[in-house]
Amino acid sequence: MCRYSIFRRSIDGFFFTLFAIVSTLTHAAHPNLVSSIDDVNKMRAAINESGYFSNAYIALKAKVDKQIKQPITVPVPKDGGGGYTHERHKKNYQLMYNAGMIYQLSQDKQYAQFVRDMLLEYAKLYPSLGLHPKRKVKSQNPGKLFWQSLNEAVWLVYTIQAYDLIHDSLNANEIKEIEQNLLKPVAIFLSEGQPSTFNKVHNHGTWATAGVGMAGFVMNEPEWVEKALYDLDKSGKGGFLKQLEQLFSPQGYYNEGPYYQRYALMPFVTFAKAIENNQPERKIFEYRDGIVLKAITTTIELSYNGLFFPINDAIKSKGIDTIELVNGVTVAYGLTRDSGLLDIANQQKQIILTGDGLKVAKALDAGLATPYQYQSVAFGDGADGNEGALVVMRQNIKSDKVQQALLFKPAAQGLGHGHFDKLTWQFYDRGNEIVSDYGAARFLNVEAKFGGRYLPENNSYAKQTIAHNTVVVDERSHFDADVKVGNKNHPELLFFTTNDHGSITSAKIDTAYQGVTLKRTLALVNLPELEKPLAFDIFLVKSDKAHQIDLPLHYKGQLIDTSFKRDAFTKTLKPLGAKNGYQHLWLTAQSKPNAGLAQITWLNNNGSFYTQSSIVDNDTDVLFTRLGANDPNFNLRNESAFIYRKKGVKKHTFVSVLEPHGQYNPAKEFTLSAQSELSSINYSQSNGVEFVEISLNNGSRYLFAITNDLSGKAKFSYNNVDYQIDDRFKIIQLKNQQ
Amino acid sequence: MCRYSIFRRSIDGFFFTLFAIVSTLTHAAHPNLVSSIDDVNKMRAAINESGYFSNAYIALKAKVDKQIKQPITVPVPKDGGGGYTHERHKKNYQLMYNAGMIYQLSQDKQYAQFVRDMLLEYAKLYPSLGLHPKRKVKSQNPGKLFWQSLNEAVWLVYTIQAYDLIHDSLNANEIKEIEQNLLKPVAIFLSEGQPSTFNKVHNHGTWATAGVGMAGFVMNEPEWVEKALYDLDKSGKGGFLKQLEQLFSPQGYYNEGPYYQRYALMPFVTFAKAIENNQPERKIFEYRDGIVLKAITTTIELSYNGLFFPINDAIKSKGIDTIELVNGVTVAYGLTRDSGLLDIANQQKQIILTGDGLKVAKALDAGLATPYQYQSVAFGDGADGNEGALVVMRQNIKSDKVQQALLFKPAAQGLGHGHFDKLTWQFYDRGNEIVSDYGAARFLNVEAKFGGRYLPENNSYAKQTIAHNTVVVDERSHFDADVKVGNKNHPELLFFTTNDHGSITSAKIDTAYQGVTLKRTLALVNLPELEKPLAFDIFLVKSDKAHQIDLPLHYKGQLIDTSFKRDAFTKTLKPLGAKNGYQHLWLTAQSKPNAGLAQITWLNNNGSFYTQSSIVDNDTDVLFTRLGANDPNFNLRNESAFIYRKKGVKKHTFVSVLEPHGQYNPAKEFTLSAQSELSSINYSQSNGVEFVEISLNNGSRYLFAITNDLSGKAKFSYNNVDYQIDDRFKIIQLKNQQ
Repeated sequence: MCRYSIFRRSIDGFFFTLFAIVSTLTHAAHPNLVSSIDDVNKMRAAINESGYFSNAYIALKAKVDKQIKQPITVPVPKDGGGGYTHERHKKNYQLMYNAGMIYQLSQDKQYAQFVRDMLLEYAKLYPSLGLHPKRKVKSQNPGKLFWQSLNEAVWLVYTIQAYDLIHDSLNANEIKEIEQNLLKPVAIFLSEGQPSTFNKVHNHGTWATAGVGMAGFVMNEPEWVEKALYDLDKSGKGGFLKQLEQLFSPQGYYNEGPYYQRYALMPFVTFAKAIENNQPERKIFEYRDGIVLKAITTTIELSYNGLFFPINDAIKSKGIDTIELVNGVTVAYGLTRDSGLLDIANQQKQIILTGDGLKVAKALDAGLATPYQYQSVAFGDGADGNEGALVVMRQNIKSDKVQQALLFKPAAQGLGHGHFDKLTWQFYDRGNEIVSDYGAARFLNVEAKFGGRYLPENNSYAKQTIAHNTVVVDERSHFDADVKVGNKNHPELLFFTTNDHGSITSAKIDTAYQGVTLKRTLALVNLPELEKPLAFDIFLVKSDKAHQIDLPLHYKGQLIDTSFKRDAFTKTLKPLGAKNGYQHLWLTAQSKPNAGLAQITWLNNNGSFYTQSSIVDNDTDVLFTRLGANDPNFNLRNESAFIYRKKGVKKHTFVSVLEPHGQYNPAKEFTLSAQSELSSINYSQSNGVEFVEISLNNGSRYLFAITNDLSGKAKFSYNNVDYQIDDRFKIIQLKNQQ
Repeated sequence: MCRYSIFRRSIDGFFFTLFAIVSTLTHAAHPNLVSSIDDVNKMRAAINESGYFSNAYIALKAKVDKQIKQPITVPVPKDGGGGYTHERHKKNYQLMYNAGMIYQLSQDKQYAQFVRDMLLEYAKLYPSLGLHPKRKVKSQNPGKLFWQSLNEAVWLVYTIQAYDLIHDSLNANEIKEIEQNLLKPVAIFLSEGQPSTFNKVHNHGTWATAGVGMAGFVMNEPEWVEKALYDLDKSGKGGFLKQLEQLFSPQGYYNEGPYYQRYALMPFVTFAKAIENNQPERKIFEYRDGIVLKAITTTIELSYNGLFFPINDAIKSKGIDTIELVNGVTVAYGLTRDSGLLDIANQQKQIILTGDGLKVAKALDAGLATPYQYQSVAFGDGADGNEGALVVMRQNIKSDKVQQALLFKPAAQGLGHGHFDKLTWQFYDRGNEIVSDYGAARFLNVEAKFGGRYLPENNSYAKQTIAHNTVVVDERSHFDADVKVGNKNHPELLFFTTNDHGSITSAKIDTAYQGVTLKRTLALVNLPELEKPLAFDIFLVKSDKAHQIDLPLHYKGQLIDTSFKRDAFTKTLKPLGAKNGYQHLWLTAQSKPNAGLAQITWLNNNGSFYTQSSIVDNDTDVLFTRLGANDPNFNLRNESAFIYRKKGVKKHTFVSVLEPHGQYNPAKEFTLSAQSELSSINYSQSNGVEFVEISLNNGSRYLFAITNDLSGKAKFSYNNVDYQIDDRFKIIQLKNQQ
């Protein structure tokens, strides 16, 4: 309100000019959002030295040089997501931001002029716009430039930064034109114009508060900053700080999972950095015990071999090199100077042109990177961290490439993109998925595949329980696949412990199916004699009524062998079921193994073998499936699974051990240990202690004992010998019986 | 005969001693097979300097140090291939060779003593052995240490080198014991003892002649060398030189394909190097216009992105880093100092400890490697190069990673490991298989998979014609899958041309099916407007009688779209046929497109799209299949194909264009050009000139004209304009019709 007031004419000129000066004095000079003037000075020096930073500068400048030769195109909004005008406006804000930064670093006016001219075009267009023609009917959050206001908020986050970067090159008329006709109207549209979105404690709200708050800094509207931080009514019920409190768990886990977490990260990190530069007294990075930083490192921790764990509606090729996490790691390094973050920066292969980006670049130039140390962690879910958890257990964490990881998901539903997969798990080894999750059924932006949107099979298969590695009761999905019910209920994490021998976790839920309790304990532990850790799985299903219980395991690789006879369907294939995802599974073989140990071995294309050894009674069916039935458009990947099925039981405990072993190297023409080392598994329990006894082919016998006691401690005797558990579990080598 | 004579006692001592001295004088000192004393002196110096060579030395020494701490184990032969004694004897010869080389370089006697002790164990065992208990009944080539004499010959090739390396550390008694009781008996067993194998012009014969010939050099038996070179009767009808003449085509192509070529290479390269060191006057590397060198470089040329083209019974992970080709490239670099070979050596990541290995290491230390320049080549098949050909056409060959390659196979049958796939093709782009070949159905050395041998499905599917990308008549395989008939017949290469615009080739065969001529022309050419080349395919089938004609294409990736409606089998799958490989294909969908252009688009996991555009009449069926029917043991990979089918026709020409396009990048969230640029294809011919006219979506029209004239030249008119072809084909941009 103040700064463009100097262009008001006539008698109140003096008064307003005075205010304008006050304003200039009370807020920092430009630029001062993510990068400050001090940052810019250092960056200007760095582009003349060889190194990561100047390389990044040269590359971006070359790209911008090419783009600004094209005519400026600011089309009248017409298309929905993926369409021409949509994509053009997205490219425009990115280009304005990049050109603005190149202007600051090169001090070459042509870049500022390009941004100015584009902003003026927008300033001409914007006042003429009504709501977007492709907005959804009855939408709460239509945009003007875009079909939804989310994109408009993203546009503002970039554009306000671009404006800040070129601000000092503009004359008074230009400033007035751009602020009055474009930036202020956009900011007002996204705040006062859409209170329900702006105040919403949701990632869409974060983009809006970030854009409006940053606009407040740049255009000296302190009220906007206050509203962005504390809700339109400044009550603190909504706004950025509330979002920081509610959208992440205390450990920095974002309810929808890592694929969405990295997306949500962007406005949090960007706005927080702008707050830090403009109002350091807020100590925003210390807010809620450093939640912004935790959100960044948690996003890293939720990856394996560079890719995010693909829970919920995740596209599997998304990983730590995503631009949102590049920004996050850059800011985090600027804050912490943690050399492990440089390892991630190295893998990201992208330096961004900001003050923190310069710090990262210089540190990489100096070779300061040290290997990032992944941890085994139970990330509590929900604002208070008590709505279940997402648990990552890792072994051999010194090297990311060969480490094993086990992901356990007793997490909350995670809103509309959540899958009905309570207590599911995934396993990773030697860089690859071994026990896998389908992720989202979607070919992003591929028009021929349902317009590039989520495919119908995302609902009919990928979200359904059978698509995951967890129990399905009576061929129905958890919560009967009702998101609202799912959002209201969550599993309970019973325990999580990690120590030198391995990690263990347990959780339960009794709301996935009415009258049915599901309790699963998973452990990843090393046995002294085995090169790689074993994954123990104890899944208890309990009900008052009899049910059919299926426990599927989706494996990646080629089936090598089973310890039992299979009857394969060689002449005809039929779907396994009629609905809830079952209709998409071809039944390829079935078995009823004899009581004892049932083993299934597959070969992953990482060259290792994996054997799942299960205890079976005489009445367990094993079904083998391949995905692809009822898929007229060939939308699904033809992946493989096996399912342990118990019919008509009130209670059952599935006990199994997953064992990575051996090596298949046809290039070097050798094959090692293609067969499991396990010869038997026995499960029992006594006084709250559970026992899994395993025997190896060489005669060794081990007892894996777990206490369910709250204290994590227990005393017990086994085969008449007394033992003690101090830390939730114990591995004991048993003496061989005579 | 001479050198151990000095140990004879009593009166004839003087006489024999004299002979012994003469002998010592007339042949080179030890070692002098692949590495000479001069080489050893240079290597001894190099291990004290840092670099590739000393790194390789340190690594091998550490490995040998670990192995020689184990007790020496020379078990009585008992097991067949893959079994314990078989594998133990294989490890022993490798270990003796390695320890011998470490002895030469370190001059530490413990290594020589280890080899000596193992040789003495063998010398104790060998005289007691009869033929191996696991030999095949009625086998022509049983071994004693191994079930087949091939392994015994390999054993000798390594062991004689190990002996040569430690010879000068042995005392007279040890020499006598080892030569008399072991090395000479083995050499005699493999030569005089098995004339049919030794004289055979076959890769098994090469191992035998190499072993025996090298033994002749080491133990001063010049007769053995002569016999190894010229047949036991020294007639020249067999022996190493005849093998060099017969087993490779003039361009260095080995009849069984690259997977076997690299295996065959080892004894050729090793023995040739030993001949060069001992009898340089033979100029063995100049023999037959440098055939040994050609065999090495051809093996490199028959790879894409580091892996061999998987024709015939090939295991697909085998590539240029195979030890046989490491040896080959090392020797070739020693001969030629071609810096492009250093690029291959870099990719092989293995330096071998020989004189030539030192040259490679030093050149890599000095950074002399330059990119290997792959070529487009028609490798003539057969001893005279006129029994068909294997044709490799490449575009964008400056970089191996992003280049396109088209492999065309109008080659001869290639003996028992050959597939019935006359005129098949494969296509590669951006590092991946796009139009693929199944290769061999085998899990090498995986006991649970049919003992690690070729699976039954190798015969029932992988070798059958339908498993390839070529025409199948009446659902029968070429030559009715009779190897003998296949070996007697071969296609004829009609032409091959490569120039700046691309490459083209054509071949025909009229013996694959009685009364049916198959003629295929394939071209890989660049259009000025398209980023990537197009692959043109014109397949003519002609017969006096009516037949069903299938043309399958096995594609790698996910089906994205077809320009025509498909009827998918969503509720039940049935096999496509009953035999000749058809029984393994589930029919997943079928169509009968309208006349005109039929387009099928898939997405490879390299992130590119591929569209095959075909001309169809109103009576062409398109069948979609997935592999896996009648596969009770889940032995097959579940790959996808589509088949163009014409029923009851005497003559048909399949015309299609394969077009790589666009990019799918869900990690960076963009998708480019997911749809084909082609809008029509028309095929015609006139006076021996064939025309494929294509139109692009942007309205451009191109004519691709091919002459079948022997001269490769032609004049023609098209749309009333006169043109001329100077080099087999021409690409003409047509003016748009008004």
